[in-house]
Amino acid sequence: MKKKKNPTACVIIIGNEILSGRTIDTNKNYLCKELTSNGIDVIEARVIKDNEKQIINTIKQVRKKFNYVFTTGGIGPTHDDITSLSIAKAFKVDLIKNKKAVNILKKYYSSNELELNKSRLKMAYIPKGAELLHNPITKAAGFRIKNVYVMAGIPEIMEAMFKKIILKIKKGIPYISRNILLNLPESNIAKDLSNIQNKFKEVEIGSYPFFKGKLKGVNVVLRSKNKLEINKAYKEIKKKTNI
Amino acid sequence: MKKKKNPTACVIIIGNEILSGRTIDTNKNYLCKELTSNGIDVIEARVIKDNEKQIINTIKQVRKKFNYVFTTGGIGPTHDDITSLSIAKAFKVDLIKNKKAVNILKKYYSSNELELNKSRLKMAYIPKGAELLHNPITKAAGFRIKNVYVMAGIPEIMEAMFKKIILKIKKGIPYISRNILLNLPESNIAKDLSNIQNKFKEVEIGSYPFFKGKLKGVNVVLRSKNKLEINKAYKEIKKKTNI
Repeated sequence: MKKKKNPTACVIIIGNEILSGRTIDTNKNYLCKELTSNGIDVIEARVIKDNEKQIINTIKQVRKKFNYVFTTGGIGPTHDDITSLSIAKAFKVDLIKNKKAVNILKKYYSSNELELNKSRLKMAYIPKGAELLHNPITKAAGFRIKNVYVMAGIPEIMEAMFKKIILKIKKGIPYISRNILLNLPESNIAKDLSNIQNKFKEVEIGSYPFFKGKLKGVNVVLRSKNKLEINKAYKEIKKKTNI
Repeated sequence: MKKKKNPTACVIIIGNEILSGRTIDTNKNYLCKELTSNGIDVIEARVIKDNEKQIINTIKQVRKKFNYVFTTGGIGPTHDDITSLSIAKAFKVDLIKNKKAVNILKKYYSSNELELNKSRLKMAYIPKGAELLHNPITKAAGFRIKNVYVMAGIPEIMEAMFKKIILKIKKGIPYISRNILLNLPESNIAKDLSNIQNKFKEVEIGSYPFFKGKLKGVNVVLRSKNKLEINKAYKEIKKKTNI
């Protein structure tokens, strides 16, 4: 019987401020963690500029390669928010005023006694044919077009959007993970690990050395969808390292 | 007179542990910040798996598009360290035992009374024709092949390697950056910012909203290589926002 593969995903972080190093990107780690724990394998992540051509080319390229693409950033009201238009161009559809999105914004701004000015209305322009993604915080919607999910860049809003998305999409089997912390250089156990990896093909064995001042150690991380196999591999590593 | 363009760079973080969300990637931010402050424009960053095919394809693609490519991760002694071999394959050269690298390791391990075992020796296999990159901490070298700089994944070692690299490579003109913090929603100033952006083409004006509990505010960041222009744009934004 052929084993079912997990859905694959690519995360695209859009924003000049990340690439200049000014802003620390926390969205990537959040999305990687949440997708992985839902059995969706993140194969690649990219950070790109708020540049129309780069957004178009990236989206065209990755959406063919992965089941899901999740973007964050660039859907706000200012001149540098060009993600929605660029995504529309990548799909060769028009960016149109979405009635539902307008109504959501109207309601939100009138209840806060604020004017729905032209800049705010910009956030209701959505690629034709896209489905709105609910934003429970500031109400300006994200959207899904085909397999591409376009979310806000502000972490609080992105996370709120994602929590709604994850309820609806197809998930896979989450990997089980086991961890062995060793206070020795990884080169001491490299040969054993290699042999054990060759024996247990269904287990992904990662070796992650670390430094803490002068102390050298290694985290051996086992990941698998097969509980029996991961436990066997775990025992063998424990035995070899005498702990 | 045509203006000189800054060199461009792409940062490639190699490692399953980043994509599973287990490890927070700090290397990207370090490299983005350091490169930017040296006038090298980071146009793209990618995180990819410890997967030979993915590494080869990524390197082939990005090395043509950017002046520099910096990779981190996957050059250690264990079975999951496949970066060096994959890079050799991307350049269609052999991975060979580098005499200089062997001697450095020999000296280091003998002075620490440790055996230069087969796993440790793996770190002396370098693509043919590559130049070694000094690692002052654990001595296992990184390497440069053409415009691709291959560094370790452990932040302390990567940073030590990079500090040597940056002394040697061609830099550009760093951007001057000015910041205006406003305690108002960005949609209030979007129109003015757009007009000012249209007026000052040499200034990149970014608008980065944030949430702190319920407080909404925005960081307006101006970046330019032209001091006169950035100061003019800064004054206009200050005037428009009455602060």
